[in-house]
Amino acid sequence: MSDLEILRDKIEKKTLEILELLNERGEIAQEIGKQKETQGVKRFDPVQERKIMDMVAAHNKGPFETSTLQHIFKQILKASLELQEDDNRKALLV
Amino acid sequence: MSDLEILRDKIEKKTLEILELLNERGEIAQEIGKQKETQGVKRFDPVQERKIMDMVAAHNKGPFETSTLQHIFKQILKASLELQEDDNRKALLV
Repeated sequence: MSDLEILRDKIEKKTLEILELLNERGEIAQEIGKQKETQGVKRFDPVQERKIMDMVAAHNKGPFETSTLQHIFKQILKASLELQEDDNRKALLV
Repeated sequence: MSDLEILRDKIEKKTLEILELLNERGEIAQEIGKQKETQGVKRFDPVQERKIMDMVAAHNKGPFETSTLQHIFKQILKASLELQEDDNRKALLV
């Protein structure tokens, strides 16, 4: 394998690891959604979102810029909220 | 800790793991960028991007929809390309 092929192999493996962690994070978000439903708490929580954004800033060692990573995490949070809303809709249909 | 606090703790830990893997992926992308620079190969590679999108579809076990994950990975690929371009700009300035 050429150097480029070796690196591509590495980046593909890393992609799959990220994919798995994203889905694991999605599962926890679903559990949080169910808890909030039970407790009658609103799903969207700006304080919690701010906390995640601050965590990303505090722990970022690069090479990505913090703003870039925060943008990606905002997408992840948005997708998680949609996941919780879907679950709730399905629960209401039962 | 309440159930919700335990879950939040879990999701924050998962967030940090994802953050770390994203940056590790960014580092590999930088190495790929340097290799391509040496070989005079174009940085943007639609075939490789398609391959990543197909991989995401093939390995997705949910709960996120494949289209949602592909959208997130497109952001990651875009950010990686910008990282490679920045490196190249800096290299030219030396």
